[in-house]
Amino acid sequence: MKRNNYYTLFGFNNAVSVLEENKCLEINVDIVEGSKSVRIIKLIKLLKQKKTPFQIIGKKKFIKKYFEEWNHGIAVSFCYDLVKTSIPDTFNKENLCYLILDQINDPQNFGQIIRTAECSGVDGIIYSKHNSVPVTNSVLQVSQGAFLNMSIFEVTNIKNEIKKMKKFGFWSIGIENSINASNWFELDYKGKIIIVFGSEGKGIRQQVLKACDFKGTIEMQGNINSLNVSASVSAILFERLRQLKTII
Amino acid sequence: MKRNNYYTLFGFNNAVSVLEENKCLEINVDIVEGSKSVRIIKLIKLLKQKKTPFQIIGKKKFIKKYFEEWNHGIAVSFCYDLVKTSIPDTFNKENLCYLILDQINDPQNFGQIIRTAECSGVDGIIYSKHNSVPVTNSVLQVSQGAFLNMSIFEVTNIKNEIKKMKKFGFWSIGIENSINASNWFELDYKGKIIIVFGSEGKGIRQQVLKACDFKGTIEMQGNINSLNVSASVSAILFERLRQLKTII
Repeated sequence: MKRNNYYTLFGFNNAVSVLEENKCLEINVDIVEGSKSVRIIKLIKLLKQKKTPFQIIGKKKFIKKYFEEWNHGIAVSFCYDLVKTSIPDTFNKENLCYLILDQINDPQNFGQIIRTAECSGVDGIIYSKHNSVPVTNSVLQVSQGAFLNMSIFEVTNIKNEIKKMKKFGFWSIGIENSINASNWFELDYKGKIIIVFGSEGKGIRQQVLKACDFKGTIEMQGNINSLNVSASVSAILFERLRQLKTII
Repeated sequence: MKRNNYYTLFGFNNAVSVLEENKCLEINVDIVEGSKSVRIIKLIKLLKQKKTPFQIIGKKKFIKKYFEEWNHGIAVSFCYDLVKTSIPDTFNKENLCYLILDQINDPQNFGQIIRTAECSGVDGIIYSKHNSVPVTNSVLQVSQGAFLNMSIFEVTNIKNEIKKMKKFGFWSIGIENSINASNWFELDYKGKIIIVFGSEGKGIRQQVLKACDFKGTIEMQGNINSLNVSASVSAILFERLRQLKTII
């Protein structure tokens, strides 16, 4: 369903986000006929206000078109130039935070990370082109509109990007579960930082971890030894926010 | 597929967790024929060691039986008395933490919360029977084996449970996104505490929130105003852990 910068998402929240943010082009909405819910009425009102084309179509046709049963009967298609390939080289905020995702494979995790990053004030997400899930419809679906307010960069060589950003005054921190490193809360997240997370099964690749100035770890307290990567991201980003809010 | 305490999960990790924890009864494993991966060989070795019955079956039969395409060709069925209905009334640890989930509806969120709770040393999870997703196969699938090391309680009246636990010396904390309350990191999570989280769309119900001794909030930094509940749980539980580790 996706070609270049074209995406299709489902549900009321996604449709409203796409319409209200005024960033997407060629928006088109399909709505399954028969629903008279408050949400559908609201959505149609918004569509008319924004002069966005939409169709009311039969349920069978909808399912045939989108191969989805679960979709709340609303599909929004649009064009959005989301993923960039070069990171800006001017950084003029005192506290900046970029996430680097080294080979995240699960769309659910990637989408959740975008959402958590937006909620915690991250400035951008950088992911490796190779062996990573790309920005698919599924990724954006999970992000619940957060992708519209997040800079996302796809790069071919993460190690080189870390090196480049260090020249602009960034410190890099690699986070792994249960390695021999500082506790996650003993690290300093103030100033310009990049925080690196690794893939679900394998963690951060050795050569990428070597490029990090600091290593942090979350020590597992139970018997299973794998915190989900999106849960790790949340723990770290809100620890960063705590530190920023505590010094003010 | 689920009746009473019978569950069916998919994939290598779940099968190994169920086998190794020695807590489940009537375990049976189906494996799709034809795979000679290292994992399948490992699993079969473990099954023989544990004297657990298993079958190698054709792919078509497997899909017909489980209605699942995605399952890594491994299905483990078992009986496990997971969900209790009454919370113990002896608490003999200095620091104790119970999570209360007020009407969480998404199996993905519930499963992730179980996993994060296990990794961050939570002592139990209590959820409301009504208007919540029950402990289904999907919930356990997402928890990645964490459910085998977590006490889970289903109760009919959350407010009453909070009151009961207060009598045993617990403090209760309700967490909501962007309400007028203390910052999440300004609260004291030491000692015996219960932390309450609300449903994805509606948050904590008013009467439950009223029963909480303290209210904490995570202020959103971006434009979307909803951090996923499992991400909130992670932020809070690792802040608790930071506080516990900092005073030692």
